Amino acid sequence: MRTKSATVQEKILASAELMFASKRFHEVRMEDLAMDAGVGKGTIYRYFKDKEELYTALLKVASGDLIKLLENTIKLQTSPKNKLIAILESSIQLFDAKPHLFDLILYAEVFQNSNNDFVWQQTRRNVIQIVENIFQMAENEKEFHIRNHKEAALLLLGGIRAIIRFGNTPRPGNLCTDLVNHFLYGFSKPQTCPNSPPQT
Amino acid sequence: MRTKSATVQEKILASAELMFASKRFHEVRMEDLAMDAGVGKGTIYRYFKDKEELYTALLKVASGDLIKLLENTIKLQTSPKNKLIAILESSIQLFDAKPHLFDLILYAEVFQNSNNDFVWQQTRRNVIQIVENIFQMAENEKEFHIRNHKEAALLLLGGIRAIIRFGNTPRPGNLCTDLVNHFLYGFSKPQTCPNSPPQT
Repeated sequence: MRTKSATVQEKILASAELMFASKRFHEVRMEDLAMDAGVGKGTIYRYFKDKEELYTALLKVASGDLIKLLENTIKLQTSPKNKLIAILESSIQLFDAKPHLFDLILYAEVFQNSNNDFVWQQTRRNVIQIVENIFQMAENEKEFHIRNHKEAALLLLGGIRAIIRFGNTPRPGNLCTDLVNHFLYGFSKPQTCPNSPPQT
Repeated sequence: MRTKSATVQEKILASAELMFASKRFHEVRMEDLAMDAGVGKGTIYRYFKDKEELYTALLKVASGDLIKLLENTIKLQTSPKNKLIAILESSIQLFDAKPHLFDLILYAEVFQNSNNDFVWQQTRRNVIQIVENIFQMAENEKEFHIRNHKEAALLLLGGIRAIIRFGNTPRPGNLCTDLVNHFLYGFSKPQTCPNSPPQT
């Protein structure tokens, strides 16, 4: 058996990603993928024993990219509130640029091997943890104090997911700043609360 | 060709729902379903030409049930805030009682015929509309004033979806009341805002 090469593997994954972006998931065939990547069908199967392994590999790359993106983006911000805004902005940018990622996640979730932990589930846990860490930092720095970290993180992240999938495009200019302000200080317009931040 | 009967159709759908609740989706076979429903395989295919039609029918029933449930539950409440709480409570109860509904939706979404509008998409639009109507009612009655109806509704509904799927169980006692209060008046604990509602 010939040795595997990282370059060939990357080439296959790059082709797979483009193909999944333009076709319905179950329409993608390993044969077409081999042709597109310029490798033999046998080669594909040396790297990925079936379609499931291929999705899993693609999701692992996407997952690594997302976590790296979020970690880098929040490093650039000092205040916890701005870190939250940066997380929402980066997530929207990533998924708007790669809308097929949702399909990839849906598909892998449906076909997950029930014996394995679904690969994206660990990514979810990581992102929730990143958000909860920011809540904790805000509490330590007395910037704001979130009452129930887990539920609040889920609401914010599940909410932004729905907005990415079903919200208006092009995205309104101050979308993420508004969302974080409203999340922290209320979606209901306060009339006279002295503690509320500048309202947009 | 024999005529179809509503009873037989309901029997098949009831069996299908139970079967989908206990098996991975792609493991459910039309043959097993026929046996379980006590009808011939040919009978199944007279009612549902393929698995896709069967999912679609199941989702239509679930969709009708959800909308009816939400409409009934909000009728029992007078204040807009309590209507929102009732919507969250009913949604959690429904999906906690039928966790396979998520799989059903995921599966149908992956295999949707791209020519047809995905059946659950209309349900989403209906639920978003129900929530936006409540926002409008609250504004008319000057109970609260939501700044951006569409994004706020998506955040609340996407958020509750994430909490149903990934939140702690058993559900905390005041979960929905807390969520709606925090959604309206802020997840950040206010210190001295005179206008904020009683904090839990």
